[in-house]
Amino acid sequence: MTIGIGLLGLGTVGAGVAEILATPEGRHPLVAELELRRVAVRDLQRTRPIQLPSELLSTEPEAVVDDPAVDIVVEVMGGLEPARSLILRAIAAGKPVVTANKAVIARHGEEIAAAAAAAGVYVLLEAAVGGGIPIIEPLKQSLGANRIQRVSGIINGTTNYILSRMAAEGADYAAVLADAQRLGYAEADPAADVQGADAADKIAILTGLAYGGSVPREAIPTEGIDQLDARDVTYADQLGFVVKLLAVSQRIETATDGDPQLLDVRVHPTLLPRSHPLAGVNGVFNAILVEGEPVGQVMFYGPGAGSGPTASAVVADILNIAGGPPGIDPLLAAGSWRQCRLIDGARTTHRNYVRLRTTDQPGVIGRIGTCFGDAGVSIQSIVQFEADSEAAEIVVITHEVLEADFRSALDAIAALPEVQRVAACLRTL
Amino acid sequence: MTIGIGLLGLGTVGAGVAEILATPEGRHPLVAELELRRVAVRDLQRTRPIQLPSELLSTEPEAVVDDPAVDIVVEVMGGLEPARSLILRAIAAGKPVVTANKAVIARHGEEIAAAAAAAGVYVLLEAAVGGGIPIIEPLKQSLGANRIQRVSGIINGTTNYILSRMAAEGADYAAVLADAQRLGYAEADPAADVQGADAADKIAILTGLAYGGSVPREAIPTEGIDQLDARDVTYADQLGFVVKLLAVSQRIETATDGDPQLLDVRVHPTLLPRSHPLAGVNGVFNAILVEGEPVGQVMFYGPGAGSGPTASAVVADILNIAGGPPGIDPLLAAGSWRQCRLIDGARTTHRNYVRLRTTDQPGVIGRIGTCFGDAGVSIQSIVQFEADSEAAEIVVITHEVLEADFRSALDAIAALPEVQRVAACLRTL
Repeated sequence: MTIGIGLLGLGTVGAGVAEILATPEGRHPLVAELELRRVAVRDLQRTRPIQLPSELLSTEPEAVVDDPAVDIVVEVMGGLEPARSLILRAIAAGKPVVTANKAVIARHGEEIAAAAAAAGVYVLLEAAVGGGIPIIEPLKQSLGANRIQRVSGIINGTTNYILSRMAAEGADYAAVLADAQRLGYAEADPAADVQGADAADKIAILTGLAYGGSVPREAIPTEGIDQLDARDVTYADQLGFVVKLLAVSQRIETATDGDPQLLDVRVHPTLLPRSHPLAGVNGVFNAILVEGEPVGQVMFYGPGAGSGPTASAVVADILNIAGGPPGIDPLLAAGSWRQCRLIDGARTTHRNYVRLRTTDQPGVIGRIGTCFGDAGVSIQSIVQFEADSEAAEIVVITHEVLEADFRSALDAIAALPEVQRVAACLRTL
Repeated sequence: MTIGIGLLGLGTVGAGVAEILATPEGRHPLVAELELRRVAVRDLQRTRPIQLPSELLSTEPEAVVDDPAVDIVVEVMGGLEPARSLILRAIAAGKPVVTANKAVIARHGEEIAAAAAAAGVYVLLEAAVGGGIPIIEPLKQSLGANRIQRVSGIINGTTNYILSRMAAEGADYAAVLADAQRLGYAEADPAADVQGADAADKIAILTGLAYGGSVPREAIPTEGIDQLDARDVTYADQLGFVVKLLAVSQRIETATDGDPQLLDVRVHPTLLPRSHPLAGVNGVFNAILVEGEPVGQVMFYGPGAGSGPTASAVVADILNIAGGPPGIDPLLAAGSWRQCRLIDGARTTHRNYVRLRTTDQPGVIGRIGTCFGDAGVSIQSIVQFEADSEAAEIVVITHEVLEADFRSALDAIAALPEVQRVAACLRTL
């Protein structure tokens, strides 16, 4: 029994999928039963890394979705539209969908899931987060016995490449970004990566799976690495930390049951102690740490992007659909079962790293410490890093404190006559 | 619809499973539909970490399997018999089985899989390897698009705890083992762990899943850490390596197709370069590195044992069975699809670490180097470590060489008059 695959998009990921389907030897025997029947491309004339019979190609993605020979629709075109409409069109036709599109799932996941549930088809998305790393299926099928407490990850390869090089070379963000663009590790328009939107898309998806309920994508507080100063990477190193763009989704314990589950979901550059399991993840690699009761900590590590790894995840989803018995497995389908809500940022608690630019006068550290103390913010360390005739740089690391208290302390500190400015402020694990 | 669970064994893992089933709040909603209906124990009087109604307990495991109220049989008693017979009895009764028993699966996996396939029921075993780490399901369901090239892992927590402390403290094996026994990290009879049998059971299981065909468990070359000398850990460290008990299962490319797939499967203490992804895995943690085309390297890391983590894996399997639609998913059932065969050890290639005890005379290093060269064994480094009036210690690290060549070089070296003995010989990545 051969299963017909329709591919929407023949870019990096699409070509990787076609390549796997064309070379089934040595893979799971089910791969040999998959047949690429129709491929939607934007431009028929373009040269591609993989040669396909021209009669397979079409510039009409709707025709690929509608083709009766296509049993499973694979959406690897990216972007919101027409991806969303095509996915919904496939579902409406009773065809299961495999997608690598984090943006469309992060923003229209509920609509798509509802349509899929109504039609009784799967929409699978292993490739949308972590490239080749199995993380979606493990969350759905291997960790369901747990009360998940936190999911945290390095889930954007571009920014991790940039941060790894900034740390290794003491280099500036702009210089490394330019080099990353030259080497193909960063897009010509790097905004979605460096400003954190890509990571926010992915943590939105992981949140829905980990807690059985979603939070609005637009409401996730997101800070990228584009404002990061190389000296904070250097100071962090001297204090025993590495700086990573971390996406975090944390369950907040509440006194009352039955209310929506409160979650603290966010993306920002974060100081990790060098001993943290995610601290050693460098270059374009991704890793996701899942913490739950009773499993403890489990981590998934691997290539977060690239043609082959992402195609590996896409084809895994195809196999799960193609191989499964008729009917829908609720774990694989992964519906939502809980109302979730983002906690008010002011009520979250975190450790913080603050760099202050001050005049180099005796007593400054004491006054800064007093401001923190008055606000109830306890401090782990205050270190003066450099001083010239103009200014000193003072770095403070706090214990875990309430964000509202921390902010009021910072306001008081900014108002001190000796403090020229709050030069940097980063979350710390 | 409630699903009846019958538990064979109420030790560490069994109690962990009962605990999860008794506290479904906050877990996947399917957990609330599982009901513990019957539990087989050896001794009704024993005090246990979890209190269960006494009418649930029975000293007759057959009665638990046969109980019509039991829909899924969970075997967490361990050992070969009666576990094997009870698993087969459940299968014969048409009941799916979840087991954490690596020994019985490594030795009787084919018999059990054949019976399960004939009866059309699942036998799932996520907990048999890596404790709470999702590794069995990802291999079955998330990596099927790949040609797996190598699976290597730190899959025995006891030995990794011992090795981590030997490395950190420069301590002797015997001293750390005694301490590990006192702390509960090693059994009173540690043989299965420290001699490598437990890791060999697990790599046998991973091999079957990664390559779709099994190799005879007894034929897997297995070397433990019980003969490991602390000074080799120290020398390795000085050369930039850490010593880990590694279980490896590697595909050998052969010229001819259609023949059984040749595999190199083994368990032994291994020098890993400090930059290797598995080198930083310390204490009782486990990690499994899977390498395949096109995914590249993916790693799974977490707690390799313990009540909670192992129970997390057991209940995940129960959920997959309880939630799935009628019929058998071939990926989840994971039949074999390929003949596999172990390669003759003499035909394998490896890097090696050799420690030689020699007289401290000029020219020794030259003669040793000549012996390696004559046998076609190329060397990366020769370092003399210490010398007293009696002897010198010379450590050689080879490049990747044919085992047969390496052995013939060692024979020639052992025959040199200056060489007192080949004091240690370890594989190196």
